[in-house]
Amino acid sequence: MASDRRRSVHTQTTGMGRMSRVRSVIGVDVGGTKTAAAVVGPDGRLGPVHSAPTRAAAGPEAVLEVIRSLVTDVRAEARLDGWGEPAAVGIATAGMVDTTTGVIVAANDTFPGWPGTPVQARLTEQLGIAVTVQNDVRAHAIGEAWAGAAADVRSALVVAVGTGVGGTVVIDGRAAGGAHHAGGEIGHMPSAGAGGLRCPCGRIGHLEAVACGPAIAEQFRRRDPDQHAGTPDVLRLADAGDEIAGDVVHRAGVALGQAIAGVVTVIDPHVVVLGGGVAGASTVWWDAVCETLRTELVDPLRDIPVRLSTLGGSAPLIGAARSAWGVVDRAGDRGSREDR
Amino acid sequence: MASDRRRSVHTQTTGMGRMSRVRSVIGVDVGGTKTAAAVVGPDGRLGPVHSAPTRAAAGPEAVLEVIRSLVTDVRAEARLDGWGEPAAVGIATAGMVDTTTGVIVAANDTFPGWPGTPVQARLTEQLGIAVTVQNDVRAHAIGEAWAGAAADVRSALVVAVGTGVGGTVVIDGRAAGGAHHAGGEIGHMPSAGAGGLRCPCGRIGHLEAVACGPAIAEQFRRRDPDQHAGTPDVLRLADAGDEIAGDVVHRAGVALGQAIAGVVTVIDPHVVVLGGGVAGASTVWWDAVCETLRTELVDPLRDIPVRLSTLGGSAPLIGAARSAWGVVDRAGDRGSREDR
Repeated sequence: MASDRRRSVHTQTTGMGRMSRVRSVIGVDVGGTKTAAAVVGPDGRLGPVHSAPTRAAAGPEAVLEVIRSLVTDVRAEARLDGWGEPAAVGIATAGMVDTTTGVIVAANDTFPGWPGTPVQARLTEQLGIAVTVQNDVRAHAIGEAWAGAAADVRSALVVAVGTGVGGTVVIDGRAAGGAHHAGGEIGHMPSAGAGGLRCPCGRIGHLEAVACGPAIAEQFRRRDPDQHAGTPDVLRLADAGDEIAGDVVHRAGVALGQAIAGVVTVIDPHVVVLGGGVAGASTVWWDAVCETLRTELVDPLRDIPVRLSTLGGSAPLIGAARSAWGVVDRAGDRGSREDR
Repeated sequence: MASDRRRSVHTQTTGMGRMSRVRSVIGVDVGGTKTAAAVVGPDGRLGPVHSAPTRAAAGPEAVLEVIRSLVTDVRAEARLDGWGEPAAVGIATAGMVDTTTGVIVAANDTFPGWPGTPVQARLTEQLGIAVTVQNDVRAHAIGEAWAGAAADVRSALVVAVGTGVGGTVVIDGRAAGGAHHAGGEIGHMPSAGAGGLRCPCGRIGHLEAVACGPAIAEQFRRRDPDQHAGTPDVLRLADAGDEIAGDVVHRAGVALGQAIAGVVTVIDPHVVVLGGGVAGASTVWWDAVCETLRTELVDPLRDIPVRLSTLGGSAPLIGAARSAWGVVDRAGDRGSREDR
């Protein structure tokens, strides 16, 4: 991962055949509730983040329109703010993505009609700029590994807990596996803690059904129907000593800790990185995850470092931008060859 | 992995500085009950397998003596049988191994005193030949990926169910991860199916406590105390329609299937390979594993191919030999350079 940071100059072939220095790309993160976009430099530095509701329920055309609108705004601002003309767009999206074609392979019920959408082809045509597309969990992990909490080590399990629960193993800067355009879906691990709860994927007993943000809020409301607390409220109540909130949040942390222990015992990465909206919002949750790791893991692994994401909610956007920089680098290589 | 097979000629610098063709190495598999050793060619071809009880309970010196004795026998036989002088010894052993030093880092109660044993240094000195040491689960997986059931694909989760339960992800010919000399220990994944059962590692509720060979026999005896069946008997009884045996074996298969589903959903390898003494011995078990994968996995992954190990019990030995060939190749490279 460290070697990626050595790259400091990017060149691009213009229409006139001249070489000019590229100073920015655009990263986009299409989440279940909102979409964010920003300009990102070659060192992972982030410009101002623009965001808008994803409108996932309105179907793929609405989602594509949100992306186009945000990219157009960011592009115009980048030119004015001295970032130069962004050279590519990297998109991180919920769902499984064929990264070779940029077509969505599968998505959950939050994104009706998203599977089958040729996101890369549509946006490349409409925006007139190179576009890459990848799964947001993978992008989150690549972001943390490139410019965040795991930038100093060769391997990490990066877990994000928000609307869903994702977890990707990154080894030497790459997301491990992905033979069927999937992977990263730690939320769909069978979990003892999920009991008979139904996962958003429709199956029973997956981790996400007990550990994702909405599940935490739902479990709390089931046990205390008078309350109308959202996930952040429940996390806050847990830390303030509320017994029911504390139990719900603790169970979510234990279930996640068991799933992480399962991956760590098979892969043995250098560190675990926790991110997403839930991580960092509750000491009860954090302690439950870490204590479960110490309880479950065999001695050589039980003290594995657990770190908080340093990029926060921007990690998928930055990871998406990292992939866009990959396109710029390859285009630069081709340009150089053509100029010879 | 396929590229490894292109190598067909190995050269070695002799004491006289001449280059001669190396035709064999020795692979050794130190298991919980027996130790096996054999000569292995550059294409993974296996000579006659010699074996002896491991004598793990008698302590590390006894285990080392068993290895020395077997290697000496195999070496003498190799010379007589036209394999030439074996150029290195690769050892696969139960326990966690620091592969850079060949020292055992940790082991379960089956191997008292094994942790801390400098296996590589001791055997290199006593045998007068290059020795490599690695974990047997990793060796099993590397063997199947090199010359077995996953030789045609770039990534695999290789699981072995015998005295213990191991599972390693191999990507592009390498065992993934291993930052703390661990990994491959799918048997220590938290498992809903293990309930309150104690794992050989001492913790409660790990997969191995319900899914390893001895656990299958023990669960059967608990429910039918008049029986004194061993694991193979229970697997046979299950396939013959015995209700209790069928239930015990089914539960073991479901628990393993859930653990495999957990790893597959995070990593998404090309295939799953099942080996070890339990795999292939029972249709009830095999069907429980595969049916659980189809039930638990999200759509893009549910039809992941599940293959039976083609190397059987020889996989760890062959994987260990693959690593020994790595030493021969590196020595050959150095020799070539010195000769220039």
